[in-house]
Amino acid sequence: MPILDFFLGRPLANWEERGEQIGPSAGIPIFGLDALSSAAYGPEAALTLLIPLGLLGIHYILPVVTAIVVLLIIVYFSYRQTIEAYPHGGGSYTVASENLGHHPGLLAAAALMIDYVLTAAVGITAGVGALVSALPSLQPHLLGICLLILFILTFVNMRGVRDTGVAFLIPTYLFVGCLLIVILLGVFHVVVTGGHPVPVMAVPRLPAATTTLTLWLLAKVFASGCTAMTGVEAVSNGVMAFREPTAFNAKRTLTIIIALLIVLLLGIAFMCQAYGIGATEPGGSSYQSVLSQLTTAVAGRGIFYYVTIASILLVLSLSANTAFADFPRLLRAVAVDNFLPHLFALRGRRLLYSAGIYWLVFLTAGLLILFGGVTDRLIPLYAIGAFLAFTLSQAGMVMHWKRTGGPGWHWKMMVNGVGATATGLTTLVVLVAKFMDGAWVTALLIPLLILVMSLVKRHYDRVASQTADDTPLDMTGVSSPFVIVPLDRWSRITEKGMRFALALSHDVQAVHVDCGEHADALDAVWQRNVVAPVKAAGLPVPELVTLQSPYRVIILPLVDYVLKMEREHPGRTIAVLVPELVVRHWWENLLHNQRAQLLKLLLLVKGNQGIIVLNIPWYLQE
Amino acid sequence: MPILDFFLGRPLANWEERGEQIGPSAGIPIFGLDALSSAAYGPEAALTLLIPLGLLGIHYILPVVTAIVVLLIIVYFSYRQTIEAYPHGGGSYTVASENLGHHPGLLAAAALMIDYVLTAAVGITAGVGALVSALPSLQPHLLGICLLILFILTFVNMRGVRDTGVAFLIPTYLFVGCLLIVILLGVFHVVVTGGHPVPVMAVPRLPAATTTLTLWLLAKVFASGCTAMTGVEAVSNGVMAFREPTAFNAKRTLTIIIALLIVLLLGIAFMCQAYGIGATEPGGSSYQSVLSQLTTAVAGRGIFYYVTIASILLVLSLSANTAFADFPRLLRAVAVDNFLPHLFALRGRRLLYSAGIYWLVFLTAGLLILFGGVTDRLIPLYAIGAFLAFTLSQAGMVMHWKRTGGPGWHWKMMVNGVGATATGLTTLVVLVAKFMDGAWVTALLIPLLILVMSLVKRHYDRVASQTADDTPLDMTGVSSPFVIVPLDRWSRITEKGMRFALALSHDVQAVHVDCGEHADALDAVWQRNVVAPVKAAGLPVPELVTLQSPYRVIILPLVDYVLKMEREHPGRTIAVLVPELVVRHWWENLLHNQRAQLLKLLLLVKGNQGIIVLNIPWYLQE
Repeated sequence: MPILDFFLGRPLANWEERGEQIGPSAGIPIFGLDALSSAAYGPEAALTLLIPLGLLGIHYILPVVTAIVVLLIIVYFSYRQTIEAYPHGGGSYTVASENLGHHPGLLAAAALMIDYVLTAAVGITAGVGALVSALPSLQPHLLGICLLILFILTFVNMRGVRDTGVAFLIPTYLFVGCLLIVILLGVFHVVVTGGHPVPVMAVPRLPAATTTLTLWLLAKVFASGCTAMTGVEAVSNGVMAFREPTAFNAKRTLTIIIALLIVLLLGIAFMCQAYGIGATEPGGSSYQSVLSQLTTAVAGRGIFYYVTIASILLVLSLSANTAFADFPRLLRAVAVDNFLPHLFALRGRRLLYSAGIYWLVFLTAGLLILFGGVTDRLIPLYAIGAFLAFTLSQAGMVMHWKRTGGPGWHWKMMVNGVGATATGLTTLVVLVAKFMDGAWVTALLIPLLILVMSLVKRHYDRVASQTADDTPLDMTGVSSPFVIVPLDRWSRITEKGMRFALALSHDVQAVHVDCGEHADALDAVWQRNVVAPVKAAGLPVPELVTLQSPYRVIILPLVDYVLKMEREHPGRTIAVLVPELVVRHWWENLLHNQRAQLLKLLLLVKGNQGIIVLNIPWYLQE
Repeated sequence: MPILDFFLGRPLANWEERGEQIGPSAGIPIFGLDALSSAAYGPEAALTLLIPLGLLGIHYILPVVTAIVVLLIIVYFSYRQTIEAYPHGGGSYTVASENLGHHPGLLAAAALMIDYVLTAAVGITAGVGALVSALPSLQPHLLGICLLILFILTFVNMRGVRDTGVAFLIPTYLFVGCLLIVILLGVFHVVVTGGHPVPVMAVPRLPAATTTLTLWLLAKVFASGCTAMTGVEAVSNGVMAFREPTAFNAKRTLTIIIALLIVLLLGIAFMCQAYGIGATEPGGSSYQSVLSQLTTAVAGRGIFYYVTIASILLVLSLSANTAFADFPRLLRAVAVDNFLPHLFALRGRRLLYSAGIYWLVFLTAGLLILFGGVTDRLIPLYAIGAFLAFTLSQAGMVMHWKRTGGPGWHWKMMVNGVGATATGLTTLVVLVAKFMDGAWVTALLIPLLILVMSLVKRHYDRVASQTADDTPLDMTGVSSPFVIVPLDRWSRITEKGMRFALALSHDVQAVHVDCGEHADALDAVWQRNVVAPVKAAGLPVPELVTLQSPYRVIILPLVDYVLKMEREHPGRTIAVLVPELVVRHWWENLLHNQRAQLLKLLLLVKGNQGIIVLNIPWYLQE
């Protein structure tokens, strides 16, 4: 255990929960990495679709990003209200199921589950992909590096929330700091040059226009840019991780994340327009990311350039961490409502929902291996889940205000209503724009997940309805059981079983299955070793029943006999005592038949409430 | 079950044993295939070593084969006596361990086990190898054909002894018949031509001599030729398979097998000399087996030639069947003496020792796959085991006669003494001649197997000495146990457990592990649902013990508590009642924690004779 403690930290007691809670400074790396890192690919995704428009296309990026920012602000105000209303964690699942019903809740949950797994896989491969395009010699190790980063993320997260926040603090603030410097320098140049800045170093020239803008293209550009908004719901889902005053700290964290994201998005869009920088053909030989071009144009290719690029790569791959923070919490919330195995609601040694983390790692590793570390094809699947969850969450909040009222509920309802409408429309746009590219996979997976969760719930409901019991203990018919002891031959093992049987009940039967070997000998032993001493002790003498088994099967005649006795003694508990040799080494089991186990299994499968199988272990000494 | 019955035959009852017993006509295919088929490779193996002597070498084959036949006759008389003395199966293991002690017995057993597995693997590959050299287009499917034949052999053998005899009757008698016709035709030609027969069709000419005969070469030739004697012990090992009069039938079978083998060996050697036929370089492009050359010389390449060759191939691959007949019987004999798991002594549905068959198939398939169906390299390992077993068996018989006496015991002892000496010397010659070629592997494996068997015996002895009990049931201290019921929350499952607990004993404790959730609520439920009704029934009130678990582990505090109670109640049985939900489908288990299983496992590992774990199953209804 000390080794485990050294690597993963010592176990945390329940009362140490408060020490694990965090404030905004740790909250930003933990819950904001996904949202902030999307500044690195959201605008680029939009610009890539504008390439065919040439230089003209760049003029559309600022309006599109502004529209996204407006949406972001709407979503921000909606989530502020959600956090306030759900200080114990107001993820889309919780809000939707509490206010709209179970099915919308499950829809949100399924959408988010898919989204988080994709966040983890796409985040890691995006970072590693950028690293590999910078250092092509690493290409053969692509998948290995992806899995290594997954391992590091897992390892850091297994140490608990606080340690994770500390570990990711520096990369996050370095990333934000560098990008802010790039933007400030750029704005300064623009202002100084009166709106016509000259790049410090040349950037690729844009190709000539090959098409003109259509509404359909604009919709697709908007839909792609919206990937910048994924990860915004993370804070509201993880409110419970914050220290008191919980809602206040969570809101402050959300405010900072959204404000930074807005500055980054608008800054990037503004500078692209000012410097005439667009996306380059992805996968082309002269590919260069938009942020790389921007940094080059503003600051040249000095140390600052390399630090900035490095921080982008790092934050991209670490953005997967948001999935680590939220996926287990989401699963826990669903499991508490009986829609997933209860295992997901148990907290491990570091107060984490460990099972959720294991599953996330398992699924992410599966995706990484399946796609060989190249997850470009997964990107279209992405973002729909997030927007679906946004919409359901906002719609839920509308119902929440209508239901609960409170001061200014009309205004609050309006804010969430605008949010729901805006995100709902966006969801439709994204779904239509990306359906053929792969969004249909998500559209298929979501109902499947909902089905599975419904089946799980049905099972738990069945168990609950059958086992629920608030009546006092029924003391009628509490009487000693009818005891059956399978008997092979007389030994200390059997003796222990018989002693226990006689202690339990006065109705004891020993049952011997005779395959044609030593029945008569056993009868004599029985008379001498059992009947005589029991008579002497003045107790009722147990009966020895011999079952003939011409086909040399031992277990089935026993099972049949037990079932027969059950029918003959209705209402009485039948206790089958299985004396069992317990060895100290696993390999010793190879030397003994496993009939006791098999008998137990069959009686469990065939039996009903009236039959109870009891192991009487007899321990072999060294 | 009907499907199983159709393919493998219906189960056989104990009293059908007699119907499964066989006479000489079925005994020859079952126990004689290995011995008879060795006529196809024994002389060839000897002739191959004589190739460097050219035409001169052929003159040595008749003397060498005659020496082998003399040895065979000695062994024959020895085994006749063994069969008579051990009508219940006198394999080398039985004879050696009863007369010479356990270690010589185990030596014989280990040698024979290795030999049987090699017989199976080498037999199959020899036949398939010959087939493939005749039809080279089958080469890519070599391993597949080997495994197919293994499967067919397994399948036929699983149907029982009788059916196996019937299935192999025709190939065996066809093989013997064809070879006898070849020999008769050849002898007729030799007589007619006055000792100078002319081949019907030309056979390959022998190369010029490149070396001269040395004693070392002669020893190696003899050792190689002795492979013709493997399989001779099969009958004595399987005496019990014969019908009454058992010994008589077994002896008659042995006589026929040995007589046929002698005729075949001498006939082949005589004709090689008369026709000037030697071996061709194995693996060479002009390779042709000795029997193929002989048949060609005597009868040309008509239909008879092809029938003969086909029967040889068939019998070679079926010779593996002797291993199927004897290996399980050998394992059974060893298992009955506690040197192998008792599993090997159980008879399956068709009265076979099924576990032995499974192991033989498993090991043979392993060898076939490991060597890709080319087992030439295994041949040197072969034959040592057989001769070691011969020697030990004969030596054991010498001691047997000395010990038991009886009419003419001096003579009998002398017969076996001559046998022991002759086979002992042969073993030495074979070992020395083949040691470097691979016999050292056998020499290493044998002590390893003996070690394993000794360890198995030691374990069984330990179990026996600890559990053996011929004293009457000890009725002192037979009192109701101290009962502990782990309790999570109040449900029908727990209620069933408590009812059973109260029926067992008046000392009942319920133990709840509190991870900081609902301890107070449980206390109230306990007072209302348990304390009140038990008091009303006038029984002693069970105690509710709550264990605090700040680190959220459930099982360990429970285990510790049980062990503590055990210390506090010395001499009293502690019964831990684990109420357990039993679901109907395996996947439903994923939805429930397996704490009951884990608790049982840990208590089994940590507990001792005083702790008994009882499952109280509660069955979920559909």
